[in-house]
This record gives sequence, structure tokens and C-alpha cells, in this order.
Amino acid sequence: MSLITLTTDFGTGSPYVAAMKGVIYSLNPTAAVVDISHEIPPQDVRHAAVVLEDVTDRFPPGSIHVVVVDPGVGTDRSLVFVRIGRQNYLAPDNGVLSRLARRKAPAKIIRLGEQQYWLHPVSATFHGRDILAPVAARLSLDLDPDWLGTPQDALVMLDWPEVSAKPQAAGGPQALSGSVLLIDRFGNLITDITAEMLTSRAETQALRVTCGGRSVEGLSRTYGDRPEGTLVALIGSGGRLELALVGGSAAGLLKARVGDPVTVETRD
Amino acid sequence: MSLITLTTDFGTGSPYVAAMKGVIYSLNPTAAVVDISHEIPPQDVRHAAVVLEDVTDRFPPGSIHVVVVDPGVGTDRSLVFVRIGRQNYLAPDNGVLSRLARRKAPAKIIRLGEQQYWLHPVSATFHGRDILAPVAARLSLDLDPDWLGTPQDALVMLDWPEVSAKPQAAGGPQALSGSVLLIDRFGNLITDITAEMLTSRAETQALRVTCGGRSVEGLSRTYGDRPEGTLVALIGSGGRLELALVGGSAAGLLKARVGDPVTVETRD
Amino acid sequence: MSLITLTTDFGTGSPYVAAMKGVIYSLNPTAAVVDISHEIPPQDVRHAAVVLEDVTDRFPPGSIHVVVVDPGVGTDRSLVFVRIGRQNYLAPDNGVLSRLARRKAPAKIIRLGEQQYWLHPVSATFHGRDILAPVAARLSLDLDPDWLGTPQDALVMLDWPEVSAKPQAAGGPQALSGSVLLIDRFGNLITDITAEMLTSRAETQALRVTCGGRSVEGLSRTYGDRPEGTLVALIGSGGRLELALVGGSAAGLLKARVGDPVTVETRD
Repeated sequence: MSLITLTTDFGTGSPYVAAMKGVIYSLNPTAAVVDISHEIPPQDVRHAAVVLEDVTDRFPPGSIHVVVVDPGVGTDRSLVFVRIGRQNYLAPDNGVLSRLARRKAPAKIIRLGEQQYWLHPVSATFHGRDILAPVAARLSLDLDPDWLGTPQDALVMLDWPEVSAKPQAAGGPQALSGSVLLIDRFGNLITDITAEMLTSRAETQALRVTCGGRSVEGLSRTYGDRPEGTLVALIGSGGRLELALVGGSAAGLLKARVGDPVTVETRD
Repeated sequence: MSLITLTTDFGTGSPYVAAMKGVIYSLNPTAAVVDISHEIPPQDVRHAAVVLEDVTDRFPPGSIHVVVVDPGVGTDRSLVFVRIGRQNYLAPDNGVLSRLARRKAPAKIIRLGEQQYWLHPVSATFHGRDILAPVAARLSLDLDPDWLGTPQDALVMLDWPEVSAKPQAAGGPQALSGSVLLIDRFGNLITDITAEMLTSRAETQALRVTCGGRSVEGLSRTYGDRPEGTLVALIGSGGRLELALVGGSAAGLLKARVGDPVTVETRD
Repeated sequence: MSLITLTTDFGTGSPYVAAMKGVIYSLNPTAAVVDISHEIPPQDVRHAAVVLEDVTDRFPPGSIHVVVVDPGVGTDRSLVFVRIGRQNYLAPDNGVLSRLARRKAPAKIIRLGEQQYWLHPVSATFHGRDILAPVAARLSLDLDPDWLGTPQDALVMLDWPEVSAKPQAAGGPQALSGSVLLIDRFGNLITDITAEMLTSRAETQALRVTCGGRSVEGLSRTYGDRPEGTLVALIGSGGRLELALVGGSAAGLLKARVGDPVTVETRD
């Protein structure tokens, strides 16, 4: 039986989350439900998209990831079942799965339409409880997702900034231009520049990372191997280039925000 | 075996919650424990009462809902087992169950007295851990609640404002006077006026909802179908009339607080 | 099969916590995982040490407590499996287990070294996910902890202030000098002076507790038996002397901080 995860912007401790769990357990009393996060900033579809990309692959194959970050609830946006790789998703089709889907094409997209699997009456404002939760519970009891509705060709895709490369000088190495994707609780700036993009460079020590007018020379291996107060660049646990302030907040020091440009150049 | 839920004002991540879970799992290692919320404002019995009314019915029949919002811990207030409908509650008898109980009379009230089911020594300040948690674990292992203590006739009932109706004009339709019951994380104002009270009116579009000196004409179906910055009234997921600001906080805009009056009139 | 608990400074709702759970469930799909707290203040090893001392004994014998409060991640600090009493711990060897270990000597300390039980590649910045989570999952599936690495003689021990006793007057009773160990969400000041230290005194009513320039005469039994606004001293649920303000925050009133001195004298 599949594990069900929940990702919402309801806030930890929200009665809305509890209501969804109540619905799931009522249909499948032995369900295994795991909270990924209820601390997605309200209606921040892009933030949720990055969290889902970073985390859901860690779960067992066949897990059912329910996502309720849904500014368009009750409008004509569709709700979808999506299989990407070995993971399953139930979410509004609002771009929240678009980072996952641009990395690997969905193997199946079903627009939810079969109302016999929903809770009635369906509230106009809480499809998470009345549609996604009961559908997740039924999938965890081995309902075939093909029964949920009709196939759909593609998902709504958000426009994500691409990391670009350009020559620093004629014949010389290339500079990478990326941006801040997420800021975590510690104030670490997590970028869209990945370890793979950097390893083509022979010597990561010979890099200069620049953000918010400050530059860092070379990559550190960890947060802890430089003195307190040092701004460091490193490859974080998600495989992404991060900027961190040892013992402090890089976001605070650099007054950085999501979307701010980050560049990586070869040092002179 | 019954599911156990927890609702407290300890704060998410509180070691007090962890201690309760430790006690429950020590007595029943295969217990299913679900957090409803640990974000009840400290000692806010009324807030907890509304959350319990809104959420607990969603859980499977026979669930055991443990409530620790208990400003009187260690005084002579009693602790009770209560069955209302198909749900079970363990709580201080301080009014926290009074919204549930005024909607449907309890089928059983037992004042907890049989100390062999408690943890000893019983702390004077943490009955949640030493009395309610072990009793919940034992109930989940099918202990008969009649063994927990002695029957009690009635619960402590708080005074809740009633929604009142009065004629707008001779022979005309009635205006409803209610109040703000809860303010959620998004700043939505959730009132004690329910969909049922409104559906006796032929045309919900012909309503005017007033709160904090601002009026809204007609009901929206969802948060998303009006432009950002619009104050809307709608029937929320709990079946209650809500005031919401699209893309913002209605509570902030109206400087509203719990208990503030809300009226619904038929439009001219 | 053993229960696994998690204690981190990642923040509730952190994707890092979700990643650890994903790893655990991927290796043991029927694992029972309980959050103790993800609200340890960032990198506050001492705070975590007190929480672990207060809570972990409540869990079933054989539970596996995973601790990720790890300012030295990626440096040469070791990661350890530790058995103390009937509980098991997986943590960085940075003092976070030192309150538990000074109360009762560890029965076993294994420095984690056998990399076949880890997730590869091991991130330099997230040993919680890549080492501790998979090791915990395998222990919950009955892996023998002796296989995890090599025995180690002792743990890193932090310097904890000792409660000291000195005569108040020649031949008279002794005064106790302790300090504030923790401040909880309600602003209660939880000290390192325990009920056991006080019960050698015949009459706890005859005590004067002083902190931040304010004194309280006698111990209250609970928070609720004095009028609102009264500063009270009492034995809290963890068996520790606490200072609390009825209906308010003692920490706010006394501008108190962790480490502030607290004294208990016999009243004149």
C-alpha cells in the first residue's frame, strides 16, 4: 500500500490539514500519511515546485504526493493525477509540477473528472479535502489512476529562468549566470546552478561566485570549515550551488531575494 | 484499533507534545497518532472549541480526540471522557467541548477518576501527559470507557453568541446578525453564520454582508474569481460565511477581531 | 520493530526533514517515525541536549532517537550510535548527548564508520539524510549496532553549570544556586534545580526563589491556583523548578535569558 505525502500552504497546525487527514483515514484507516511541508508561503506555486523537485524522489516508488498550493481553487483550472518517474502526484494543474516535469516528461497525466471518487458536496474552496484527499486514499487502496478521469497531453508549465553560459573572454572558459531559487530557514541562498554544471570545470577551487555585489573565491566543502562570519559558496545537500554565511544569514548580509542573479566565473 | 488525535496549545515542536506521544507509544507501540493542531493560541479554550467542531467529524468513527488546552490544570476542574455522535473526546471539562455539545448532546460523559489507568506520580501541571495520554492509549487498546470513572450529567458550557434574525422592514426579509468566530492564517474572517442559515433566502446574490464598516454585495463562489484586492464574501469549506480579501488579508484590511459583529441583509 | 524519532533544528515544514523521512521510508516502508521537535534553535546544541534529556525516556524501550543539530557537519566531528539505559541515539558527537550521558553512563558508543549502511554519494552538508537516516532505518530493521563502526570510549561532554549549595548562615540551611536551563513557549523559566534537590528541605512552602531581581515566596502547586499576573514558582512537569507568570510570560517580566542565575533560600 502506497504512502501518501502532503504539501500545502495551509500552515503547520492548520485545521485544514487535519480535515484532509481525517478524510484520508476515514477511507483508509491504515493509511501512512507523511507531511512534507505545510509551510509553503501562501499561494507560492513556484516555491512549492522547487520543494517538490528537491524532495519527492527520496520517497518510496509509488508514493502519492498530494499538493494543495492552489490560488485558483474553484476556478476552471484542472486537478490532475500525474506520474513522473516512479512517483505519483495529485495537484492543481497550475505549474506546481512544472520543475519536475521539465526534468523528466510525465508518463501519465489524468485530468480528474470521475466524481464518484470525490466527497460530496464538493466545497468550492477546498478541493484538497473534497477531491484530492479522497482520491489519494483510494489510490493508496490500489484504485487504478486511469479510472480517475481522462488523459491530458501536457501540464501547465511555468517559465523558469535558465542558467546561461557565455564566454568570459575569447577562447576562455565560460561564465554561468543563474539565480537564487530558494532561501532556506538559515538564510542560505540556494541557486539553480547545479553541481553537474560546475564539474565540467576542472578545478572548482578556481571559481568566483558573485551575488548581491559580493564575491566568494572558491568552493567550501561544508558550512563548518571556515571562521564564523565568512561568506562561503558550496554545493548543498540538494546538489545545488549555495551561498551561506558561517554562523549567520547570507540572505540578511546580501539583502538577497529569490530571483536575484548569481554568476560563476573562472578566477583570473 | 482506534486512531488518536492530539489538539493542544503547546506549539508545534514542543517537547510536551513529544512526551505525550512517548507515553502513548510506550503503552501501545502500534498506536496511530495524528496531530490536529498544536497551534491553538495559548489557553484559548474558545478557539480550540471551534477547531474541534470543524474538524473532528472528518475522522473515522471511534477516533479518540485528546485535547489539552487547559488553563485550569491542577485546579479542581475535572477531566472527562465524552462521546458525541461517533467520536470520542478526552479533555478538561472547561467548555472546550461546548460547541460540539450544543450541536449534538453527548451520549456519554465520564469524569476520569480511576487512577490505575494514569501515569504515576501525576504531575500537578501536566495532566495531558500523565492522565489523558495513558487513558487514550488504553482506550485505543479497547479499554471500556465506563471503567475510567463515574458518569457525569452535563459538561461545562461556554456562552457562545447566537446568530439572531430580525426583520429589515415590515413584512420584508430578515437581517442576520452574527460574529467573527475565527481568523485563519490567511486573514480570512470565518463567521458563525452558516450556509444553512442563508439558503432559506432565495437568492444569495441579493445579499449584503457587512463587517468593520465595509460591505460586500453578493456571494462569490471562490477566492479566485475576483480581481486581487477585492473584498469578497463566500461560503467557506466549513460551511460558514467568510469574508476574504483576494490576494490579501481581510483581517488586516478591516482591522477585525474575533467577536466582531457581522450582518447579512437583503440588498435594496 | 523500533520506533524512530527525529530531533532537528531544520524548522517545522523544512524540506530537509521530509528528505530524511523519505530516505527512512524508502528503506523501511513500515517504519514508525515520530517528530520530537524540529524547532530546536539553529545550531543550539545545548537546547537540544536538554530536550533530549527531558523527553526521550518517555518513549518505548529500544526506540532510536535521531538528532541533527550539527554545526560541525562535514568537519571531522564523528557521528555516533549510543545506547543509554534502554534508549538508542544516533547523533553527532558534539555534546548533544552530554546531559543524558552525565545522568547515566552510556552502555555502548559506536563511532559510525561502515559506509555500506550509508547513502552514496554522501553530501558534505547533510549527514542527517545520507548517514543517520539510512542507519536509523536499518537499525529499525534489526541491524546490530556493533556492525555500524568501531567502539569509542567516551562522548564529547559539554560543561554544564552545576547547582551548588552553600550555607545561608552558620549552622543554618543551605541556599541553592542554579540557573535557567530553558525558556518555553509560554515564557516559563525552566531551571536546573530539580524536585529531588528541594525535597531534602522539610517544608517547600518555606522557600524563597529569586531570579532577575524578583523573589517568589513558597511553591505553587499549579499555574492556575493564583490570580492572573502573579509570579509563581512551581515544580514543572519535567520535575524541575520553574518560574511562571500566571496568564503571562515570566521571561518577559524578568527579561530573563538562558543561563541567568536562580537561587532558592529558606525564608527568614
